[in-house]
Amino acid sequence: MCMATETQGYEQPQVISRDRAGEIAQEVQDLIGRGQENHAWELVRHLHPADVGTILAGLPRTSRQALVTVIPPATFTWILRQMNPVDAARLSARIGSNALSFVLEQVNPWEAMETLLRLPTRQARQVAENLEEPLPSAEVLEYPVDTAGGLMVIQFPVVDVHAQVRSALDSLRALEELRYRFSHVFVTGEDGVLAGQLNVVDLALAREDTQVADIMSAVQASVAVDTPSEECARLRRHYNLPQLPVVQDGKLIGVIPAELLLGAVVENDTRQMLQVASVAGESADGPVFGSIRTRLPWLTVNLGTTFLAAAMIALFESTLAEMVVLAAFLPVVAGQGGIGGTQTLTLIVRAMALGQLVGINAWRLLTREALLGLLHGIWLGVLVAAIAIIWQKNIGLALVLGTAMLGNMIIAGTVGAGVPLFLRRVGVDPAVASAIVVTTFTDVFGFLLYLGIASAMISLIV
Amino acid sequence: MCMATETQGYEQPQVISRDRAGEIAQEVQDLIGRGQENHAWELVRHLHPADVGTILAGLPRTSRQALVTVIPPATFTWILRQMNPVDAARLSARIGSNALSFVLEQVNPWEAMETLLRLPTRQARQVAENLEEPLPSAEVLEYPVDTAGGLMVIQFPVVDVHAQVRSALDSLRALEELRYRFSHVFVTGEDGVLAGQLNVVDLALAREDTQVADIMSAVQASVAVDTPSEECARLRRHYNLPQLPVVQDGKLIGVIPAELLLGAVVENDTRQMLQVASVAGESADGPVFGSIRTRLPWLTVNLGTTFLAAAMIALFESTLAEMVVLAAFLPVVAGQGGIGGTQTLTLIVRAMALGQLVGINAWRLLTREALLGLLHGIWLGVLVAAIAIIWQKNIGLALVLGTAMLGNMIIAGTVGAGVPLFLRRVGVDPAVASAIVVTTFTDVFGFLLYLGIASAMISLIV
Repeated sequence: MCMATETQGYEQPQVISRDRAGEIAQEVQDLIGRGQENHAWELVRHLHPADVGTILAGLPRTSRQALVTVIPPATFTWILRQMNPVDAARLSARIGSNALSFVLEQVNPWEAMETLLRLPTRQARQVAENLEEPLPSAEVLEYPVDTAGGLMVIQFPVVDVHAQVRSALDSLRALEELRYRFSHVFVTGEDGVLAGQLNVVDLALAREDTQVADIMSAVQASVAVDTPSEECARLRRHYNLPQLPVVQDGKLIGVIPAELLLGAVVENDTRQMLQVASVAGESADGPVFGSIRTRLPWLTVNLGTTFLAAAMIALFESTLAEMVVLAAFLPVVAGQGGIGGTQTLTLIVRAMALGQLVGINAWRLLTREALLGLLHGIWLGVLVAAIAIIWQKNIGLALVLGTAMLGNMIIAGTVGAGVPLFLRRVGVDPAVASAIVVTTFTDVFGFLLYLGIASAMISLIV
Repeated sequence: MCMATETQGYEQPQVISRDRAGEIAQEVQDLIGRGQENHAWELVRHLHPADVGTILAGLPRTSRQALVTVIPPATFTWILRQMNPVDAARLSARIGSNALSFVLEQVNPWEAMETLLRLPTRQARQVAENLEEPLPSAEVLEYPVDTAGGLMVIQFPVVDVHAQVRSALDSLRALEELRYRFSHVFVTGEDGVLAGQLNVVDLALAREDTQVADIMSAVQASVAVDTPSEECARLRRHYNLPQLPVVQDGKLIGVIPAELLLGAVVENDTRQMLQVASVAGESADGPVFGSIRTRLPWLTVNLGTTFLAAAMIALFESTLAEMVVLAAFLPVVAGQGGIGGTQTLTLIVRAMALGQLVGINAWRLLTREALLGLLHGIWLGVLVAAIAIIWQKNIGLALVLGTAMLGNMIIAGTVGAGVPLFLRRVGVDPAVASAIVVTTFTDVFGFLLYLGIASAMISLIV
């Protein structure tokens, strides 16, 4: 007896190392440079689709276009469907919506639709709009990006609560290549209302004539179409839920399968890391104009904040005039505060995202970071004073520097924890631009403390 | 007919929002504060184990100890096993290895072993060493942390290649509650050599007398016990592999199931984000001493680098003496460079981790970031010059500032891309401490450009 299995009809592509993928990418580029696109395709076609896609995405634009024209459309869309969602989004952005529409018009509508559902909604919509004939169920592409609606698929295994296991298996079988995405078959009652779920493992172990109701379990979580993808990622991570049903008015309308949920987790983690550095939404090899649009507004805001620091220094012009060497130590006090504040900030932002601050009092965190600032400040203050004595042979200056350092490290710890805690309290994403706010505080207060104390003690140090 | 299902024997805990978990945590703390630990336990025992664990981890130490004493040991270890691995590691660190050993001694050895396998190896080993009686297969805890050996479980479904589907199902059934972790049953040939895998979906759809060899598919990737967890996370993410077999001398010795692989992905993303800020390995509410040990070395290194910047300023003491107002603009040029460099750095480090730079030439990235620095520098240079004219009414100073800004933004882009690319080339993790290196460059060159140009043009600007 022979039946369809997970990978029937395709050769078994093996995984390769990242370095090996880089070498192949280089060979591909050389071949295309010599006009041998067909040879280049021969070189990669037996690789795992995830690697073919990554190599395609990394090629320079003209080489990529040359290679795409020799890939059969059905193969190309299959590659997009097999890639993980984060990489698929990147490849489709590189290919461009026009070229992608052209490819999708040459495959069957359901394949085209399944491919589009792997892509971020905004990209998918652009591609769909370019198609000459509208796709079936294209309305699902209308759900906003970054919501459960934008992540869900609309073909999933489902069975009636009064049916037997046999019917549940039939619903899996009917999904063909898509059946391997699901860990559960969903169970619905009257009017399609979600009633429970069947684990595929339980289905495998059950007899075909077992009643579905006898082996189903309750659904632990369902989401609405407008549930943010961040919340879906949290449910995946915190509760270990392999997939999430999407429900509207109690009825099951879609499912977010495991690989799209993992994509949401990775996507959220990436966005958060980039947000702390104010580069969210960018890609390291995307169009230059897109990078300018992301970064320049923040750089301009930051320019405004550095002038606050400059104004603080200007206040003490007479002190600096009396003792110019004070200027040399300006970056020391402020720079240490900036690093210390960013350390605290990053730690708190990440702990918040992982839900590790649930039930932890904000004052406890603030006190802890202020205490750490105090302890770090004592060590760094003594160290900086010692260096000042050795370098400038000036005990008064050493005292000023040490005290300012101690003060600024305490400020750095307090502000580094206080800013994200405050932003979350008022409902703003704590990752957005908070590094700019924190370093502004440590700069301004660093200069104020250092030059203020120096002014007060000027007779001692000149 | 009635059979064991996924959640039989446990009530169906529903998921709750993070805010709701925070409220319950507060109630729990109030109850314990009034000495009513048993009431507190009644309040949380019907919650999802992931929430019970998070609430426990967030309690102050004495409250946590009071609550743990009223939780039945078997329930407590079950909670640890149901939590996601990242949260379980945090809870077990909070509980402490002595208390955990005490709990584990009161449950059966296999449950104790399964619980330990969910925890980071270092923690698990400490706990195991404290046990009065050694655990079965405790040698598996000897595999280093952050390797496949440290992630794998040693109970998994496996079947002989000459067997029928019936035997594969039996191997799943024998795992009892653990059976739901696996998406595949592994197939071994002679001497336990890994020969293939059976998707549970295919098992559900197959007849019991089907030959295993007829429906098995090839294994796309396997890892060795010493494969880094980072590589395991990459295989999970890049190739969408739900679980990974661990092989030694061709023989299957363990499996990394889906939730432990996801844990490795989240753990790696977290470590990377914290590494850029030099706080990797810390936790926002862990012991203060641990935080000092992580942060203070980097703060001390950074103090050394700020003195490079200070020495640069000191070189131009005579210029500053001639025109003290120059000092006010020191943080402007250096600060913008620091932000710009960190933006580029974060983007490149993250793209590297996601494997998005495969096949992309380092020069292409460097040129792109230098070009961006040039474009940003033109805008910011004009803006800073305009502000200088309005504020200080000094066209010469404006020219100096604008030119230095332009130059430092180009340096920021080049160094922000160059440092991680160089570190990767020489085999160092590009996330470690690279922010400190980049800001040192932007500080030193920012001051050199600004004060150097000012010195050269001093007659024009005083």
